[in-house]
Amino acid sequence: VLGKLYEKQECSAARALEIVGERWSLLILRDAMFKHCTRFSELERSLEVAPNILSKRLDGFVEEGIMELGAGGDRQYHLTPKGLGLKPVIMALTAWGDEWLGQGPAQFHHVGCGGTAGVELLCKACGETLSPADVAARPAPGFVPRRQGRQAKRRGR
Amino acid sequence: VLGKLYEKQECSAARALEIVGERWSLLILRDAMFKHCTRFSELERSLEVAPNILSKRLDGFVEEGIMELGAGGDRQYHLTPKGLGLKPVIMALTAWGDEWLGQGPAQFHHVGCGGTAGVELLCKACGETLSPADVAARPAPGFVPRRQGRQAKRRGR
Repeated sequence: VLGKLYEKQECSAARALEIVGERWSLLILRDAMFKHCTRFSELERSLEVAPNILSKRLDGFVEEGIMELGAGGDRQYHLTPKGLGLKPVIMALTAWGDEWLGQGPAQFHHVGCGGTAGVELLCKACGETLSPADVAARPAPGFVPRRQGRQAKRRGR
Repeated sequence: VLGKLYEKQECSAARALEIVGERWSLLILRDAMFKHCTRFSELERSLEVAPNILSKRLDGFVEEGIMELGAGGDRQYHLTPKGLGLKPVIMALTAWGDEWLGQGPAQFHHVGCGGTAGVELLCKACGETLSPADVAARPAPGFVPRRQGRQAKRRGR
């Protein structure tokens, strides 16, 4: 919900950060995903966040289709599939924090079998589990920048 | 490098966000990881970010052991293993942006075989590939809050 902060950055990660990169955004989503907080009051208590900030973030999530308001009049917020799609981001951040900054307090598990669940880097071609050094980036085939006109104009200043 | 912003949040994700949750942080790391930018000037050009902000973020990364300064006098910043460990976070954010906000421009690949690489949720017990709805959180075994004393004091106010 940062709007156009990163507008010169034509990139999916930058676009994602415009929506979930503000203070508290990812922690609100964490509590919605993993503590099953749905009510405004639950989130406020769990996060000890100022109600005006919480309200602003939740409005932004609804606007972006990350959450939707429940039918009742009691300000219940439910994650949409788009919102749930951010689970791997929270899990990857948590795994990094666990490894480099100190463990806990939560651990992720597979609801089906109870086993420990986590984020892995995988090669879709050879099936290998990868380490960070094994992964690089290249241009996506057929990518057409959508802001080319504006960028060209800006470059021409 | 947000310091104690989230200090009441005893959680690995919150601790991680204190270090990489500020504006530009993750995009600087993205360019260091995937565009192989190491020089201050390269990052400045690539990101079109104000030099004072870039400088502050890079100093913070060095302080946190995410980057280290090269031996020469030309302000080269290299990712440490701790910094490289954030690759799955960038990849998960990018995948979400690709899916929900629009594709591209980059695609990740396995350096070894050239195949497409990505972040997956996996169960370490049964080996199944999981969807976000298949994953829940539970208390990590043996977790002892490290800020208990301060938190208890705060609660007692």
